[in-house]
Amino acid sequence: MIEYRSIRVGLLGAGSVGSQVARLLLEHADELEQRVGARLELVGIAVRDTSAKRDVELPAELLTTDAESLILGSDIVIELVGGIEPARSLVLQAIGSGADVVTGNKALLASHGPELFAAAEQVGAQLSYEAAVAGAIPIIRPLRESLAGDRVDRILGIVNGTTNFILDRMDTTGASLEDALATATELGYAEADPTADIGGYDAAQKAAILASLAFHTSVPVEAVHREGITEVSADQVESARRAGYVVKLLAICERLTDPETGDEGVSARVYPALVPRSHPLAAVHGANNAVFVEASAAGPLMFYGAGAGGVQTASAVLGDLVAIARRRVSGGPGTAESTQAEVPVLEIGRITTRYAITLEVTDEPGVLEQIARIFALHGVSVEQLQQSVSEGSQRATLVIGTHEAKESALAETVAALAQSPVVASVASVLRVEGAL
Amino acid sequence: MIEYRSIRVGLLGAGSVGSQVARLLLEHADELEQRVGARLELVGIAVRDTSAKRDVELPAELLTTDAESLILGSDIVIELVGGIEPARSLVLQAIGSGADVVTGNKALLASHGPELFAAAEQVGAQLSYEAAVAGAIPIIRPLRESLAGDRVDRILGIVNGTTNFILDRMDTTGASLEDALATATELGYAEADPTADIGGYDAAQKAAILASLAFHTSVPVEAVHREGITEVSADQVESARRAGYVVKLLAICERLTDPETGDEGVSARVYPALVPRSHPLAAVHGANNAVFVEASAAGPLMFYGAGAGGVQTASAVLGDLVAIARRRVSGGPGTAESTQAEVPVLEIGRITTRYAITLEVTDEPGVLEQIARIFALHGVSVEQLQQSVSEGSQRATLVIGTHEAKESALAETVAALAQSPVVASVASVLRVEGAL
Repeated sequence: MIEYRSIRVGLLGAGSVGSQVARLLLEHADELEQRVGARLELVGIAVRDTSAKRDVELPAELLTTDAESLILGSDIVIELVGGIEPARSLVLQAIGSGADVVTGNKALLASHGPELFAAAEQVGAQLSYEAAVAGAIPIIRPLRESLAGDRVDRILGIVNGTTNFILDRMDTTGASLEDALATATELGYAEADPTADIGGYDAAQKAAILASLAFHTSVPVEAVHREGITEVSADQVESARRAGYVVKLLAICERLTDPETGDEGVSARVYPALVPRSHPLAAVHGANNAVFVEASAAGPLMFYGAGAGGVQTASAVLGDLVAIARRRVSGGPGTAESTQAEVPVLEIGRITTRYAITLEVTDEPGVLEQIARIFALHGVSVEQLQQSVSEGSQRATLVIGTHEAKESALAETVAALAQSPVVASVASVLRVEGAL
Repeated sequence: MIEYRSIRVGLLGAGSVGSQVARLLLEHADELEQRVGARLELVGIAVRDTSAKRDVELPAELLTTDAESLILGSDIVIELVGGIEPARSLVLQAIGSGADVVTGNKALLASHGPELFAAAEQVGAQLSYEAAVAGAIPIIRPLRESLAGDRVDRILGIVNGTTNFILDRMDTTGASLEDALATATELGYAEADPTADIGGYDAAQKAAILASLAFHTSVPVEAVHREGITEVSADQVESARRAGYVVKLLAICERLTDPETGDEGVSARVYPALVPRSHPLAAVHGANNAVFVEASAAGPLMFYGAGAGGVQTASAVLGDLVAIARRRVSGGPGTAESTQAEVPVLEIGRITTRYAITLEVTDEPGVLEQIARIFALHGVSVEQLQQSVSEGSQRATLVIGTHEAKESALAETVAALAQSPVVASVASVLRVEGAL
């Protein structure tokens, strides 16, 4: 075999992803060397506790608690520490020392992306983060490079495996949210504290990253409208199923024009929505992820695969690592993020969506007319209406599907419905996405 | 706006893809300039006949019949001429003149890939070809870069939109191949001479490109085993449907170990196969394409979208163009193809598959035993057997599903069955792929 010079790789963090990255780097060293044209030498693994028990047995001589020294001796730093600090400082230190950086840290990118990209650009360092969104699925590189000559109009992403597992289980077994969550926890798909997942926080971070990248702008996680799945009921899932829909937690990134001002803007939002069964996203089962992209020229595209898992996510980290290493071998600086567009992020009230609203109403003449008037007053057009009366009951159930309308108008409509004397309760409000 | 220096882009060919590339380059010049950091200046479009009628009206002053002069005045050459010559000579000339090249020419890559990649590597030029496989779907870049640190084990691709349209229509409407092809022609999904599509030639070229890339080796199109869909009958599609399968024309690229010699090898092959309805590929309808990739670490991934169409494929061309232009702005040579592995391509007889065989047999005692003996003699294990007798007939229909066995043993089994006195006819032989 040809002898190449070597590239020093420093790994920060040896959790479920980090330990798999280390294992693959060590086990496939020869094959990777051939592909890169240089030896990828794992020079150290920075951890908090060198004696901690790990999923994968790692060579003791590589473990260190001194992350800063490891960074100084590395050409490429892989940050898999997670969280904001000390990850942020370590990444900045790595960039400052002339290293390229691979990270899978979505929280860090969603809150400090612009700072980190600017630091990397200033010194010509590469900052890659394929592993930060949708685990093993190549989505960052396709958006960043393959679609760089196209115009992304919309992204609908199932980017959180835990909630997709829960909603899929509710859909296929009729389970309650509570029971489905219990199963997810039992099978290791949900963490002991599932708030980040079921509250939509994890998906919101990914939406911020995807929107920033797709629209060449900067969308901070605080600008992402976020609703989790905690209010999704077995009844809602069952009604959706009967109507030909499935409930999915979607991260939605959209390029749009404010209907009133005509201003260009983008929207990034996360909420459970009704997706038609015929949409490719409806067939994403279990803890899988998928990102559905609509681009002006390319049309609809979908990227599907495992959204989490140590070894799966390690594949994405290694892909970034090899790309950077090849660049180092062939020469040339990293490619900067293109965030020149600086498009404003529109708040949720200014976007247009469709609602599916379920009401319990009193079963008496004139009710429909009153309901219809409330919609008309708020300028919301009804597309579909279905009324069912249980025998012997004085209540009727109305399921109303709206046409596209401004989110604020829809919200006001729902508020007015809730206060109407003929409405006993607003049983369910869900947005409808992915109409084909 | 900041003024950037410009990059001269020469376009060869103005067919359905080329004319859309020209249109997008001209219409989106400002947006692309922002993303690239330099103006992409379309300096000329080489065509055979400057007065020919085209899908898109192009500025007359850009049209030229002098491709060679255009190449000499271009920093990046986009080759969308198609076919082998003069495309090959023009690409070599472009590389020789110091230009980078984007091509969507699958025929050229499948037959002359190694020559072109070697020429590009020698001078540090980039040769990109996302548009050559699966139209708008980003598959080349994910395989080349995102999965560069992983190990691709297998690719199952629906890479020909025409045949997928035909088979999907046969599946959903019960149409014959002839009728479905007529519809495809009528709707513009099939060309006047559909041989390249329905004969599997187009898919075989794409299989050669995918296998070369995925396994870091060189698989010439001549080494791809190819069967088209011309023999697929409405009966086969209907039986498949009843058994929970759908017939798809698959391009299969597989890394495998020869069961006899223990040698590592790869297989690239194209044939209609039975795919379980539950497989993500079964949900690929119409003229869409999808590539299902199984990688060691990443697990299963799927890439889905439009496999053809002028503007869709133009998106892939522009993605390559922008990536190369960014590289030119930031400095540094192109990335060479990594074909160092040189893994042998195993011929079809040495791979293992599963067969579904339908036989018409005489309905008399002892027939099953004789059939079973033929399978046993060839070392092929039967997984499933279903017998049905039509009333008043002296014939029975046997549908036999085998376990995995060597392709050569399966072929010999089928040949022996055809010669058996108890077999009236071998009605159908299809391979089964994508078992979950």
